Amino acid sequence: MGSVAWKQLLLNALESNAHLKHSSFMQLATIGTNGTPSNRTVVFRGFQDNTDNIQINTDARTRKIEELKLCPSAEICWYFTDSWEQFRINGNVDIIDGSNAEPLKLEQRENSWFASSLRSRSQYLCPNPGLPCLHEQAQPDISLDPSTGPIDAFCLLILEPHQVDYLNLKSNQRLTFKSSVSAAAEKSWTVERVNP
Amino acid sequence: MGSVAWKQLLLNALESNAHLKHSSFMQLATIGTNGTPSNRTVVFRGFQDNTDNIQINTDARTRKIEELKLCPSAEICWYFTDSWEQFRINGNVDIIDGSNAEPLKLEQRENSWFASSLRSRSQYLCPNPGLPCLHEQAQPDISLDPSTGPIDAFCLLILEPHQVDYLNLKSNQRLTFKSSVSAAAEKSWTVERVNP
Repeated sequence: MGSVAWKQLLLNALESNAHLKHSSFMQLATIGTNGTPSNRTVVFRGFQDNTDNIQINTDARTRKIEELKLCPSAEICWYFTDSWEQFRINGNVDIIDGSNAEPLKLEQRENSWFASSLRSRSQYLCPNPGLPCLHEQAQPDISLDPSTGPIDAFCLLILEPHQVDYLNLKSNQRLTFKSSVSAAAEKSWTVERVNP
Repeated sequence: MGSVAWKQLLLNALESNAHLKHSSFMQLATIGTNGTPSNRTVVFRGFQDNTDNIQINTDARTRKIEELKLCPSAEICWYFTDSWEQFRINGNVDIIDGSNAEPLKLEQRENSWFASSLRSRSQYLCPNPGLPCLHEQAQPDISLDPSTGPIDAFCLLILEPHQVDYLNLKSNQRLTFKSSVSAAAEKSWTVERVNP
């Protein structure tokens, strides 16, 4: 069992929990700028084409961006409430914002922007997340043209997994998948059954 | 609004999501021994009496214990799927195992042990979590006397919150609670409304 195995387990879990709106919600842990852990819920935006890399959309003005710039390492914890399965996905995160120098990455960011709902896109026009809320200030009337491309605040994050820990609480089985990269830059996975 | 305020919001969330078995599941992020983030689901075991400290039971043989001994800082991310509320609770964790020198803490550990189901307690007799699973080895016949006190592998963790970030996705409101400790060692909380 290799890469396909954990990805397939994850695709199966997504399918068997698809009736739950929150099945695409996962918790992303990073290292805070003061060295303490940081943890928040984010939405799974699919795999990057033909890879096992995980896509997340976020706002460039959130604290996680500053944290990931200092330490790109992150761990996703994803618990599927209906099938009682947990995935812990550890890896490094690539931040793709509008200033990225690689045209292919900018294209991925644009694709991810247009794959989001107009409502999701409009959130990037809201006041700076995490800053004090000015009650006096009337909420701006937010409207975004559907053809408008990604705005500055929009960031695509790509997590490239290097270790995955899978736990099934129904069958009480646990598997650890570890990746390695060959001299020819080929990524491969090994799996081990471990005690739950 | 102070300590009571976020604790009350959390108690309300627990009540309005109580019909869901997974409402007591939260994600605990720590710093791995190699400096990368570590994240897993744990079960909320209530507040320590008359405090806002959060209780978690765990196995002394899990990786999180080693991690917390090196860096006691942790952040809980707790998403309530029915009421669309998220709590991010940051603080330091006190590890209470059987070797603890304080009788009051050993008593708390014992109380937490007996407050768990017999099935939960039996898990601490299982083979070392995270180690390779020996297929050849027959599963031991685990039976635990209900009157047996906490066994060595049983640890009580106490997270003492110092910052809480509350987000309500239905009302689109976000509050940040910060604690401070006075010269007389009195803990107090301030709250600020921030942009979601």
